[in-house]
Amino acid sequence: MSHYSKIAVIGLGLVGSSLARVIKARGLAGHLVLYDNNPATRTKAQELKLGDVVAADLASAVADADLVVLAIPVGAMGAVAAELAPHLKKGAVLTDTGSTKTSVVRDIAPHLPESVVLIPSHPVAGTEYSGPESGFVSLFHDRYWIMIPDYADDASLARFRAFIEATGAVVEVMDCAYHDKVLALTSHLPHLIAYTIVGTAFDLEQDLQNDVIRFSASGFRDFTRIAASDPVMWRDVFVNNGEAVLEMLQRFNEDLSYLQRAIRYGESDKLETLFTRTRDIRARIKDAGQLDD
Amino acid sequence: MSHYSKIAVIGLGLVGSSLARVIKARGLAGHLVLYDNNPATRTKAQELKLGDVVAADLASAVADADLVVLAIPVGAMGAVAAELAPHLKKGAVLTDTGSTKTSVVRDIAPHLPESVVLIPSHPVAGTEYSGPESGFVSLFHDRYWIMIPDYADDASLARFRAFIEATGAVVEVMDCAYHDKVLALTSHLPHLIAYTIVGTAFDLEQDLQNDVIRFSASGFRDFTRIAASDPVMWRDVFVNNGEAVLEMLQRFNEDLSYLQRAIRYGESDKLETLFTRTRDIRARIKDAGQLDD
Repeated sequence: MSHYSKIAVIGLGLVGSSLARVIKARGLAGHLVLYDNNPATRTKAQELKLGDVVAADLASAVADADLVVLAIPVGAMGAVAAELAPHLKKGAVLTDTGSTKTSVVRDIAPHLPESVVLIPSHPVAGTEYSGPESGFVSLFHDRYWIMIPDYADDASLARFRAFIEATGAVVEVMDCAYHDKVLALTSHLPHLIAYTIVGTAFDLEQDLQNDVIRFSASGFRDFTRIAASDPVMWRDVFVNNGEAVLEMLQRFNEDLSYLQRAIRYGESDKLETLFTRTRDIRARIKDAGQLDD
Repeated sequence: MSHYSKIAVIGLGLVGSSLARVIKARGLAGHLVLYDNNPATRTKAQELKLGDVVAADLASAVADADLVVLAIPVGAMGAVAAELAPHLKKGAVLTDTGSTKTSVVRDIAPHLPESVVLIPSHPVAGTEYSGPESGFVSLFHDRYWIMIPDYADDASLARFRAFIEATGAVVEVMDCAYHDKVLALTSHLPHLIAYTIVGTAFDLEQDLQNDVIRFSASGFRDFTRIAASDPVMWRDVFVNNGEAVLEMLQRFNEDLSYLQRAIRYGESDKLETLFTRTRDIRARIKDAGQLDD
């Protein structure tokens, strides 16, 4: 069922290309126009037939669109919004799929005319792969898609929600600050730590590094998957959610120092107490139906 | 093919019970005797028919055994070795499956008579589950099993190696100190960090904690799997490989501080540079055939 007459998806990486695929597969748009600032990506999108049209420039991509989706690194939101704003149709809905929300509103909102409806959003879905070939139609299936309702009217929100649900996602509503706090701990801090420990391994002398790779199945490997995520996307996330990430990192550092001290002084009881209660969190994730996807 | 006339497996958790299963399935022992200091575990082992006999005490379990395997937390090695040493047969091989090796030799060696052959070892295999029900016959299949050759004669080593290979594992030879260093980074530090971040989430106010659980699929969840590992086993690992873990933790902390500072001052280029090179490690793990098991 067509939810919008014309949808423009800007940015054709993992998320943008997956969204294009599901829009096309389920007929969620009367007309689907795609754009990416990288010419090679545009060519690839054409080859893969990800949309009805791959536009040659941003202005023609968004012209007449009822829904414009920015699936680009959060650091690029301001510049892209400034460029496309004059070409938006009256009453158009502009959304984004960025992993930070306070910064996206800060960067996009000033450029938008009154007549455009801003609904910041964030599909909590991804893999360690990137690029238009890495997308797939079921990426959003049963995954949360967070919607920030604060800047839009009820009718626009209801229509957007129905569209999101049609992709297979489950809509969650929250405000920007709370989103950024939750994601700082569930997503941004884990990525930062994974990047750090994999980087630490990288600096080891060569023999030791080779053996770390050979014996990586004992724990390290799980971190390398996360640390293989898109560098530019993640660079932008940390710079644009710095406050919340640094706050969670501060807590993490305090807790790590506590364990470090317990190891140094052989305080077995403190270690065992903490290691026992962390098991409980895993059980609660299972109860919440979030263990397998 | 029977490799030893009598094998005694002491400790029937994930590793011990998996070893019992593969010994039985492949007929690697003429006679397989099991023991665990927990009576409930002994009963369970009997119900599951994991061996030929479940002994009622340590002394009778190891009597006449050609191979004794200690699959117990590394913190228990010293006391158990002291108790069983007088009952070991002349020429028996004693091995262990502990995740630290320097401490195991330190704790076991002083108790052993001259006539007993010590071959410390470490199967680099596991899951986040524990207990005799969690074991399975293929746990060691295609996984590395590290053997420390420094305390044994060539004939004993060759026989032990053949036994290990018959479980499906791939034998690797190294010394205790190097083992402890490699495992500190590939296994111990990742577990410490995972325990820490999951503990950090545990201390959040209730609402935020619930949302961390709901949105855990965005990275956090990968850490909860590791942080669900056996608390006693891991408490002992950190206390008994403290020096190597603290050394790797120091490097990790320096690297994390570097990224923390880059985030605080918005130094995008530093973040992107690091995030780009960590991708390479993932590719090398894939090349080493260690990505899927």
